[in-house]
Formats: sequence, structure tokens, C-alpha cells
Amino acid sequence: MQLARVCGNVVCTHKYESLTGFKLLLIQPVSSSMAPLGRPIVATDLAGAGTDELVFFVTSKEASNTMDNPLVPTDASILGIVDEIEMLEWKE
Amino acid sequence: MQLARVCGNVVCTHKYESLTGFKLLLIQPVSSSMAPLGRPIVATDLAGAGTDELVFFVTSKEASNTMDNPLVPTDASILGIVDEIEMLEWKE
Amino acid sequence: MQLARVCGNVVCTHKYESLTGFKLLLIQPVSSSMAPLGRPIVATDLAGAGTDELVFFVTSKEASNTMDNPLVPTDASILGIVDEIEMLEWKE
Amino acid sequence: MQLARVCGNVVCTHKYESLTGFKLLLIQPVSSSMAPLGRPIVATDLAGAGTDELVFFVTSKEASNTMDNPLVPTDASILGIVDEIEMLEWKE
Amino acid sequence: MQLARVCGNVVCTHKYESLTGFKLLLIQPVSSSMAPLGRPIVATDLAGAGTDELVFFVTSKEASNTMDNPLVPTDASILGIVDEIEMLEWKE
Repeated sequence: MQLARVCGNVVCTHKYESLTGFKLLLIQPVSSSMAPLGRPIVATDLAGAGTDELVFFVTSKEASNTMDNPLVPTDASILGIVDEIEMLEWKE
Repeated sequence: MQLARVCGNVVCTHKYESLTGFKLLLIQPVSSSMAPLGRPIVATDLAGAGTDELVFFVTSKEASNTMDNPLVPTDASILGIVDEIEMLEWKE
Repeated sequence: MQLARVCGNVVCTHKYESLTGFKLLLIQPVSSSMAPLGRPIVATDLAGAGTDELVFFVTSKEASNTMDNPLVPTDASILGIVDEIEMLEWKE
Repeated sequence: MQLARVCGNVVCTHKYESLTGFKLLLIQPVSSSMAPLGRPIVATDLAGAGTDELVFFVTSKEASNTMDNPLVPTDASILGIVDEIEMLEWKE
Repeated sequence: MQLARVCGNVVCTHKYESLTGFKLLLIQPVSSSMAPLGRPIVATDLAGAGTDELVFFVTSKEASNTMDNPLVPTDASILGIVDEIEMLEWKE
């Protein structure tokens, strides 16, 4: 799974039928120093995440395993809201 | 899923048989500021997307879940046309 | 799927048994301006592609869906030869 | 699989139900010279890894194959703790 | 599949049970000019590859298709040793 920060809602009236009813959030993956890194992701939200929260999300086939209907074509799902990361210092 | 802008049509007379009948669009993934980022993608279009539209697309195995025939070998499908993204300001 | 240019043949006498009989081509993914971008890929060829041709290829599980035997361990297959891309101008 | 160093614990009270009971570690993928490279990963730990250890982890669908319940939506699992890497010199 | 050069052995006494008996090699993906590119990979070896050899490997679900037990959680397997690549000149 990867860490990301919720950065927006995706509004989309014209979408693939089986995605109806899912909240789509735009999330930005972050580095270990919590800086934005790489492309933003459109994810289905399974954790009730709100704006600006730090979350972790799962990708690929595992994302659709979280659906009652395994054929929902999602490849990114938010699984949890991160309370805290107990970081260790990096030793070279 | 990822955000992309539709940037072209792929014309291709010589292709794998089970792809016949699908519209293939060239789409360019974008950053959260909507700048082009990374390699362009050839995607099957399931949302009736037109040129220059902002879309979101699914990759990997989930892309072929969108097909009536799950053996259609696509790894990228356009699922929706984005009307609007309600963006939040990034807080460092 | 992604765009690539065919850049070589991979000659390989010692290989995993179920790959016997497949043509392996070295292809170089390209950007939307057709410049080389990223690592080269060793792909099974299902489109009769020749040297220097622009092709599109599928990755991951979908690549092995193109095989009569779904257990052939390929993760990249050339699906079509691109005749033309009708490109649109990028609007910032 | 990829090499990573364990760099933290992810504390998360609000998470997807079937992940309950799994230890989630934040790991940082490394280059062959063991320098941090790319985004950190939140992984389920199957090897009893501790802080600062060098581990290898598996991604994608194979990560959930390691679960008794294959529907646990993990896409990264730590499989082993590396004792030593017998490195060869790189010949250009 | 991708090209890589074998750069080391991974020694690991504490590992996930079903990986027992497999040789784990550290391989470095290479560019088309055979320069190191990107993160090193820990791969199961199915081709009897030795140190410093140029190999090609398969990733993701297809890697575990090469196992007698499809639940062995590997996401990278060496499939062949490259004898030669007949390269073509890149035409801009």
C-alpha cells in the first residue's frame, strides 16, 4: 500500500455504470517526508476519508477485492486513515 | 485510476483480433496541476470520450473487467469524463 | 497499452520451456513525441511486427490472456502495428 | 521482489475491516547501494521484521496470496529478512 | 519482460515458508545500452543463471505462473539467459 494525502473530489456525471455510488477522491502519493511525489490518483474511498487527511491506499487487483462486486473496475482504493507514523531515523 | 487528457486517435488496421470494434485513444496522464507527466497510454474508450477531454482511466486487470469478454487483452480503459475537480490547497 | 518502437531481436537458446516457439522482440517505449522513454521491454510478438515499426503492446496479466495457454509466463505482448496517430495539439 | 529497509510503524485505528490484526510497517525501497529510492510503501509483515532491518517484499496479487484469506486487500507483503547480499562488481 | 544483469545472491535464512528451495538472485534492470536503470530486483531463478549474465525476467502474476504451486508468492522470475540482442539503430 502507499501513503497519500486527500487533495480533492472528482466530480463526474458521465462514468462507467458499475462505479455509480462510489465516492471518488483525488489523492496525491507522498514521500516519507510527506512531500508530494508522482502522479495523483483517483481512488474509491472505503474509509470515509476527508479532505487533507493522510491515508493509505491499495492498488491493482487488490483494490477490487474490497468491493462486494469483484468486477467493479477500480484499481485504487483508500483502506485506512493514518493516525500516526512512528518513524525511525534513516541510517546510511 | 489516473487522470489523463485525450490527445489523439490510434489508427491501426493490423491488430490483435479480439480488439476489433474498440475505439483506441491516445491519452496523456497528467499531474495534479494538469501538466503532462509520463508516457502516453493507448486506452480502450468506454465513456465516449472526445478529443481534449479530461478523463480518468483504470489500468491492469481491472481494465479487462470492463469488457463483456474478460479475455479482451486491454490494460487501460477510460471509465469516465471528469466534469470538475474540487481541489484543496496543498498544506506542507 | 503503450506505444513502442521495435528495436531488436532477443536471441536466447536457454529459456523457460513454455516460451518456446514465441518470437521475442526488444521494444523501446516512446513518449508522445516518439522519443525513447524508460526501460526497453522484451515482448512476445502477436502482430507480426518488424524492425523499426511503431507498435502498441499490452502488459501484465492481459499479456498472457493473448496466449492459447494462459500459463505462458509473458507480461508484455505486441498487439498491433500503428498506422497513424491523429494527434491533437496539447492545450495548457 | 524488491529490497527495502524498515523505517516505521503505521498506526491506524480507522481501517478496512479485513486488515485488522495485521502489522503494517512503513518500508523504504532501496537501490543496490542501499540508498533510499522512490516512494515509501505500507506493507503487511509476514517475517517478523523489526526496525531498521533490510527485508525483501512482494507486490501486487502475489502479496495477497500470502494470506490465509486471499481477499485480504494487501498489495505489499514482507517475505523475508536479508542476512547478506553477496554482491558482484558491476562490469560495464 | 525486462532485461537485467545478475549482480548478486540474496542470503536469507528467515523467509516465508513456501519460498524455501528457490534460489533468489539480485538482478539489476538495464537500459537498451545495458546501463543500470532503476531499482534492483530480487528474483526467483528458473533459468540457472549465473553471476554477471544478461537475463530477461517476467514480473507480476505471470512470475508465479512459472511455479508448480501457483501460490508461491513471487513477483519476479528469471525466464532466460540472453545470448545476443540483434539491435537496430534508433531512427529519430
